[in-house]
Amino acid sequence: MGEYVVCCYTVRQQITSLITPTPFAGRINAESKARKPAQLKSATRFLKQPGLISLGGGLPLSDYFPFEELSIKVPTPGNFDRSTQETGQTLVAGKHDLTTGKSLFDISTAFNYGQGTGSAQLLRFLTEHTEIVHNPPYADWQCTMTIGSTSSLDVTLRMFRHPNMCMLVEEYTFSTAMEAARPMGIEGVGVAMDEEGLIPSDLDRILNTWNPAEHNNAPKPFLLYVVPSGQNPTGATQSLPRRKEVYAVAQKHDLVIIEDEPYYFLQMQPYTGQGAPDAPPPASHAEFLASLVPSLLSMDTDGRVIRLDSLSKVIAPGSRLGWITAPAQICERYYRHADVSTQGPCGISQLVVWKLLDEHWGHAGYLDWLVHIRLEYTRRRDVMLGACEEYLPREVLSWKPPMAGMFHWIEVNWRRHPKAREMDMLDLEERIWLKSIEMGALVIRGSWFVAEADGPQEKMFFRTTFAAAPFDKIREAIRRFGEAVREEFDLVA
Amino acid sequence: MGEYVVCCYTVRQQITSLITPTPFAGRINAESKARKPAQLKSATRFLKQPGLISLGGGLPLSDYFPFEELSIKVPTPGNFDRSTQETGQTLVAGKHDLTTGKSLFDISTAFNYGQGTGSAQLLRFLTEHTEIVHNPPYADWQCTMTIGSTSSLDVTLRMFRHPNMCMLVEEYTFSTAMEAARPMGIEGVGVAMDEEGLIPSDLDRILNTWNPAEHNNAPKPFLLYVVPSGQNPTGATQSLPRRKEVYAVAQKHDLVIIEDEPYYFLQMQPYTGQGAPDAPPPASHAEFLASLVPSLLSMDTDGRVIRLDSLSKVIAPGSRLGWITAPAQICERYYRHADVSTQGPCGISQLVVWKLLDEHWGHAGYLDWLVHIRLEYTRRRDVMLGACEEYLPREVLSWKPPMAGMFHWIEVNWRRHPKAREMDMLDLEERIWLKSIEMGALVIRGSWFVAEADGPQEKMFFRTTFAAAPFDKIREAIRRFGEAVREEFDLVA
Repeated sequence: MGEYVVCCYTVRQQITSLITPTPFAGRINAESKARKPAQLKSATRFLKQPGLISLGGGLPLSDYFPFEELSIKVPTPGNFDRSTQETGQTLVAGKHDLTTGKSLFDISTAFNYGQGTGSAQLLRFLTEHTEIVHNPPYADWQCTMTIGSTSSLDVTLRMFRHPNMCMLVEEYTFSTAMEAARPMGIEGVGVAMDEEGLIPSDLDRILNTWNPAEHNNAPKPFLLYVVPSGQNPTGATQSLPRRKEVYAVAQKHDLVIIEDEPYYFLQMQPYTGQGAPDAPPPASHAEFLASLVPSLLSMDTDGRVIRLDSLSKVIAPGSRLGWITAPAQICERYYRHADVSTQGPCGISQLVVWKLLDEHWGHAGYLDWLVHIRLEYTRRRDVMLGACEEYLPREVLSWKPPMAGMFHWIEVNWRRHPKAREMDMLDLEERIWLKSIEMGALVIRGSWFVAEADGPQEKMFFRTTFAAAPFDKIREAIRRFGEAVREEFDLVA
Repeated sequence: MGEYVVCCYTVRQQITSLITPTPFAGRINAESKARKPAQLKSATRFLKQPGLISLGGGLPLSDYFPFEELSIKVPTPGNFDRSTQETGQTLVAGKHDLTTGKSLFDISTAFNYGQGTGSAQLLRFLTEHTEIVHNPPYADWQCTMTIGSTSSLDVTLRMFRHPNMCMLVEEYTFSTAMEAARPMGIEGVGVAMDEEGLIPSDLDRILNTWNPAEHNNAPKPFLLYVVPSGQNPTGATQSLPRRKEVYAVAQKHDLVIIEDEPYYFLQMQPYTGQGAPDAPPPASHAEFLASLVPSLLSMDTDGRVIRLDSLSKVIAPGSRLGWITAPAQICERYYRHADVSTQGPCGISQLVVWKLLDEHWGHAGYLDWLVHIRLEYTRRRDVMLGACEEYLPREVLSWKPPMAGMFHWIEVNWRRHPKAREMDMLDLEERIWLKSIEMGALVIRGSWFVAEADGPQEKMFFRTTFAAAPFDKIREAIRRFGEAVREEFDLVA
């Protein structure tokens, strides 16, 4: 796992823009278009003048930051499976490491005001990483940093929202996304799903047959919000052919795609079944990267994808660090908004994460870490699937092994419930849910993720996660859930 | 400076709400009203059930955060004037300090997902601090954390924006505030200022004589955005009588006041003049607190003030930490928005700042630090004022000593310029500005801060800052600026 990762980031900088993406024409709203560069920043062009003394900006002096040194103890590549307390390394950031030549980033820089794009230091690493993993096939793509994907989506929706608007989403979707969109007046339109997630032919059908009169006069939608890998809540991962079909429908109907991928690097090893030998881990970075289903960004010849990435699931959610990748035009609208709202990500966090990712691990070490995470989640998933096979009644419950993410999605054949004729699905879902809680296992109700407020409720699901509980607790919780279902359905254990 | 600060935070929690503020009725918009608690969080009520195993939330396990320990070297109270490298102390946060009982906050908690309000740990400290300093005179005030005041203002404006709306602001105002407001369709209406900032009688006049026809049919404004201390750009600080008058006008016209106070603790020692002995520093915390002009929040009997505080100017901008203080109803609208956008402040930053402020310094140590900052800024201001008195031509330039903040505001009697009859004010301002840059001193043009896009431009100002440059550079830059003005006005040195 130690080969050198070739990066052609600097080469990319030299390519002149060959493609000017157009899917955004007429779609960016007046609010977003109205954002201009800050007037005060127009003075910065003079700062290069030799000998000039600036009494311009109101940046506080780093002498007044009550922090002299910051250090973090972190795991070292090759030792990710061993105790960091014993094998870790301590990285130290001083106040003036940049001036003294000790480092490219320091407290006096990172703890002061930054840019809406994030720091040049960390942005460069993340842009290189994006090129290594996705290599977007048009010239003027860019990355700009965010304070995490929840905010990325908020800012993106504020760029495209129009009165009386619908957005295409998976029929079961990340509930926070809809909780962000609805107050802005954006209603979700659910696209049917199967075990590979969103079904392209249904997307095409919805768009071909769009009748504003059936959607409160909303015009034909142009925004598609999609989580292609380890989707929350269904755990579904789109295959490569599926992604190509989704992209083709997006081209046909000129959609803007918001590709939200927090779980991209939680793509796991193939599921081999209980008792069978594990699939061997990737033998090289190249093999690891080749094992990942290519992103929509990687096939985005038109520049119609706004990809949201996040460090929450692979480094730590409390870092509040993410980035978007999109055409330069979109990134500019994005960081101009950041300049007057978030002001870009937290500098303390950027320094900590940059020390780890760029200065200590480098791209190779980070890929090693991502492989480590992959294998850890694979073990967790396999424990959950083993418990499901052992404890859940197949007569009424069914599932597919998730290939990515944190979630397992279990379908309930509720029509076999003794009260199926007298109770409606939602009441029955609640009843089974409460029974499981009563027996000591908290799972999540599938209906909470239905995209359309009054969407059809024909199927019943429960979501579980294998992300956090210890293995024995996962097994015990699944056992209890199985018992609750058996009791509800009058099944014999 | 070591007396114990009594804090009645816990007592406050027991007081039942006696006052229900009403200034927000009918003013919170549909977007903000539509925000509901997250559906997924409704499952958390079961988490207290003994023995329950949760497979609910998708929180990553802290085992997968590649950080074992974080430490910061910080100054200790009593040594703020000495080298932190020599006299500082190292504070260490471990991964599981909460479980092992070593601390009330740790990596596994702070680096995971948090709340829209910010962590209970740091929020408690900031709420106590707010009570010590402002002691708001109504029962149901609250604090909720933000990612800094730029975002606080963005979120607040999104709560109150209505189509075709005006907001009252100082006639020269923080340009970023208007750059945030304008794309939302909020136009600024400038209230006249003098050396004490906003003039209450002009505020009253504007509201008494409001005619929608003169303002593009905007209704009478209800939002007042004001920076009472060390205002940017004018450096003006409202006296206590001035604040009382502002509040009285706000009551008369039922305004909602956004009190933006990044510079509140940059209130400096009285200016005694060059060569005169300095005023003695505050002898106790009580004397220090008494020396601060009371905030609008401290006199807010009606609950009509939304106060924005920030750690950017007193700890570090890169912390991206601030908080608002407002009635509970407003705080709830605020953190529900945070839940679906910022997700609250960065956890890494919260842990670092909490270790410093709460665990290490405590309230007493933090007040010591604020006194230290006050004396440092006083020295900087005095250097700038000394240079102004020495180098600037009084014939055409005039100023008042700033009592707070980072900025010095210099008025130019431009009608004495040889070309005053043939050039308009803005062209002349640019000419003098470029002349100063040519001579090696960058200052900022006053016209950049005019609140109303087509506001009157009768007066000419330049803004300088004493926040950052070394003393000799401040003196030299002022000398160059004086020389540029002399050349422009054909004055003899």
